[in-house]
Amino acid sequence: MKENALVAQSGGPSPVINASLQGVIEACRNYPDRIGKLYAGRHGVEGVLTEQLIDLSCLPEEEISLLRNTPAAGVVGSCRYKLKEGQTEDFDRLLDVFRAHNIGYFFYIGGNDSMDTAAKVARLARKRHQSLVAIGVPKTIDNDVGDEDFKLIDHTPGYGSTARYWAYLVQNLNEENRGISPSEPVSVVQAMGRKAGYIPAAARLADPHREMPLQLYLAEVNHSLEALAENVNRQLLESGRCMVIVSEGYDVGSLGEARDGFGHIEYGASRTSVAQVVTNYLNEHGLRVGGQATCQVPGVLQRCTSACMSRVDRDEACLVGRKAVEIALEDGGGWMATILRRPGDDYDVYCDKVPLEAVANSFRTLPAHWITEDGLDVTDDFIRYAQPLIGEDWPELPLVGGLQRFARIDPVPVAKKLPKYTPMNWRVAAREAYKP
Amino acid sequence: MKENALVAQSGGPSPVINASLQGVIEACRNYPDRIGKLYAGRHGVEGVLTEQLIDLSCLPEEEISLLRNTPAAGVVGSCRYKLKEGQTEDFDRLLDVFRAHNIGYFFYIGGNDSMDTAAKVARLARKRHQSLVAIGVPKTIDNDVGDEDFKLIDHTPGYGSTARYWAYLVQNLNEENRGISPSEPVSVVQAMGRKAGYIPAAARLADPHREMPLQLYLAEVNHSLEALAENVNRQLLESGRCMVIVSEGYDVGSLGEARDGFGHIEYGASRTSVAQVVTNYLNEHGLRVGGQATCQVPGVLQRCTSACMSRVDRDEACLVGRKAVEIALEDGGGWMATILRRPGDDYDVYCDKVPLEAVANSFRTLPAHWITEDGLDVTDDFIRYAQPLIGEDWPELPLVGGLQRFARIDPVPVAKKLPKYTPMNWRVAAREAYKP
Repeated sequence: MKENALVAQSGGPSPVINASLQGVIEACRNYPDRIGKLYAGRHGVEGVLTEQLIDLSCLPEEEISLLRNTPAAGVVGSCRYKLKEGQTEDFDRLLDVFRAHNIGYFFYIGGNDSMDTAAKVARLARKRHQSLVAIGVPKTIDNDVGDEDFKLIDHTPGYGSTARYWAYLVQNLNEENRGISPSEPVSVVQAMGRKAGYIPAAARLADPHREMPLQLYLAEVNHSLEALAENVNRQLLESGRCMVIVSEGYDVGSLGEARDGFGHIEYGASRTSVAQVVTNYLNEHGLRVGGQATCQVPGVLQRCTSACMSRVDRDEACLVGRKAVEIALEDGGGWMATILRRPGDDYDVYCDKVPLEAVANSFRTLPAHWITEDGLDVTDDFIRYAQPLIGEDWPELPLVGGLQRFARIDPVPVAKKLPKYTPMNWRVAAREAYKP
Repeated sequence: MKENALVAQSGGPSPVINASLQGVIEACRNYPDRIGKLYAGRHGVEGVLTEQLIDLSCLPEEEISLLRNTPAAGVVGSCRYKLKEGQTEDFDRLLDVFRAHNIGYFFYIGGNDSMDTAAKVARLARKRHQSLVAIGVPKTIDNDVGDEDFKLIDHTPGYGSTARYWAYLVQNLNEENRGISPSEPVSVVQAMGRKAGYIPAAARLADPHREMPLQLYLAEVNHSLEALAENVNRQLLESGRCMVIVSEGYDVGSLGEARDGFGHIEYGASRTSVAQVVTNYLNEHGLRVGGQATCQVPGVLQRCTSACMSRVDRDEACLVGRKAVEIALEDGGGWMATILRRPGDDYDVYCDKVPLEAVANSFRTLPAHWITEDGLDVTDDFIRYAQPLIGEDWPELPLVGGLQRFARIDPVPVAKKLPKYTPMNWRVAAREAYKP
């Protein structure tokens, strides 16, 4: 029986999340006898809950092939909507929408949360005797889905491109820092990843032979601000300069806060960035060689910049999207597509699958044995793991009139069939009214 | 008579500052009968004052040609050393070093301050009857050297590459922002340029037809934070999202400060970033569509990222370096090399020269007629001016093993001939001692 398919993106984007979308689209087109229409949820699961679906069945080939060069989730949209425990309405609604639109295949591109959601939806469908094949497509720049033995999944699509962004950021910053060190000897840069240090660790890829004065402050290691300042000053005396890569999950403790006359916290860590707290601390306590520390917070730019996209990562993101469709048709639902690495010195990967339950809400940090003893660096084993992911060459990114040419898709809305529905989280936390 | 030449870089770098260095090196090599050795000051004028000179005469061709792809000032070094008024020691010392090393040509790659220094050095040399041809090579990502009629210089090398960084930043951010707008509908990004808005203005190049919800907060325009929040919320109601590009020179007023129980300012604008103040204000006053504003501060990354380098800018930076040498040999000293644009619809430039005095300490902001009436955008005239500077294609940037291949120059130190000297600014403001 021919059923329709639905694809949705979830959470923060990556530079190659649309490559996975491309993989899903192309693979679905390969099975016209089994898969009818391909829909997308506008802004992920929020669009499914509100029945805002887009029909991707008639996209021009050119735009589909441009998806691989189009970073972030602007084409069909993502959201940060976690289906809450202790309620069934949202889950029921998802299944109602799927049934109303004859959706038998659900491809969910996202991280650990999304795999949990996909698993739950699949379970509920079975309970309701509703035909639904739910498959996860891994995506996260944080590389934190899976296990620390890398047996469930070697790495997640998205990480390689953000790792490459960081490798080049540090290479270029090194030229900047050594050039301007008489006045600005310390460059502080904040990396994403609240609990896992894979992103700041990628800074090391810029300098595998450890020639740069580079210090990593990972979320996995607790250095006090005082210890950080000591480390930086030691480096300054040695090298005259220092690059400090600090995880957004680095614990600045109470030093990031100021208190008003009543002892209330005025500026908590949430009102300033970790990198700014570190920069301020260094500047206020003085750099041993004089000069100032500067503060950089690339923020979302590290997950949406296509210029540094890894071709390896992009191709794998596409592959894993195709694989998800093949799993759905060959093995049925309840799986997440994976990338695994073959043993050996040459980088070689293959796609496989794990049960959604095995990765649902899984979380991995940097393995402790990949962090050096002083806690300021990662080991050569990490470099051997991560280096192949950034690729060897520049991706060819099309330009028109000097500007980047991204996929441009006029969303074709799917006619609604169900009554209006307000997602549960919107009811619980009503959107804050505007205060003029 | 054959004399040696000295080149020095000054101030914050640009992605193409070394292309100008390449131009100077190559042009000097064309005149072996007139120019002997080519030296560089290690870290600019600080290296000249302390007699830390590097010999560039024997660099391998390959490394010279790689200079054009090597961003920022890491190769020979820059500094922020302004020779002070009301003292003659530093100026005398410069001339002493020049004489000791038979330096008859001085090429100073820098901004307005540097042109002032070059002019003063040239004047003093004439007074001392010392042969010295001093030539300025313009460099600044801020594009603030010259006049607002663009008669002295059309644009400064470095600006085109930072403008391209911003054009692509906003193109990619637009995909990010429209993708994740349900939870993060506002992306705030801080642009460099304390007093001139050329850099944030370049964000408009991402979207010449004004299809994106993009607001520019230039240093030239005073919007209160309240007005900014109103503008953003108006855009949110219209578009559901908004990208806010805010100049580091945007005046956040006293709202960026917190006071302790004694009324002392605890967190002034200098301890936080303008973008963070704007982001906090938006989040605390609520976004009309719900969700959060996010804060990005690329900082020095906008002046050292080579991946987005403009090929037009790079070629011009090289040309202007060559032109400086030709001016020195044909016209003598006291000039800054310039880039001027021929009238007409097609972008066409030529190199020329202006007296150093005309640009010394010159400063230009965005012309008022290039700013739209609402103060939130730049006009089509600005787009026509700036668009050709970002170029049409990607520069070819060599990679080795997946990493960028920059020029690697083992500095060949020049033997010192003079007694030790402590630069005046180092004496006045003794480098702050380290407080453990």
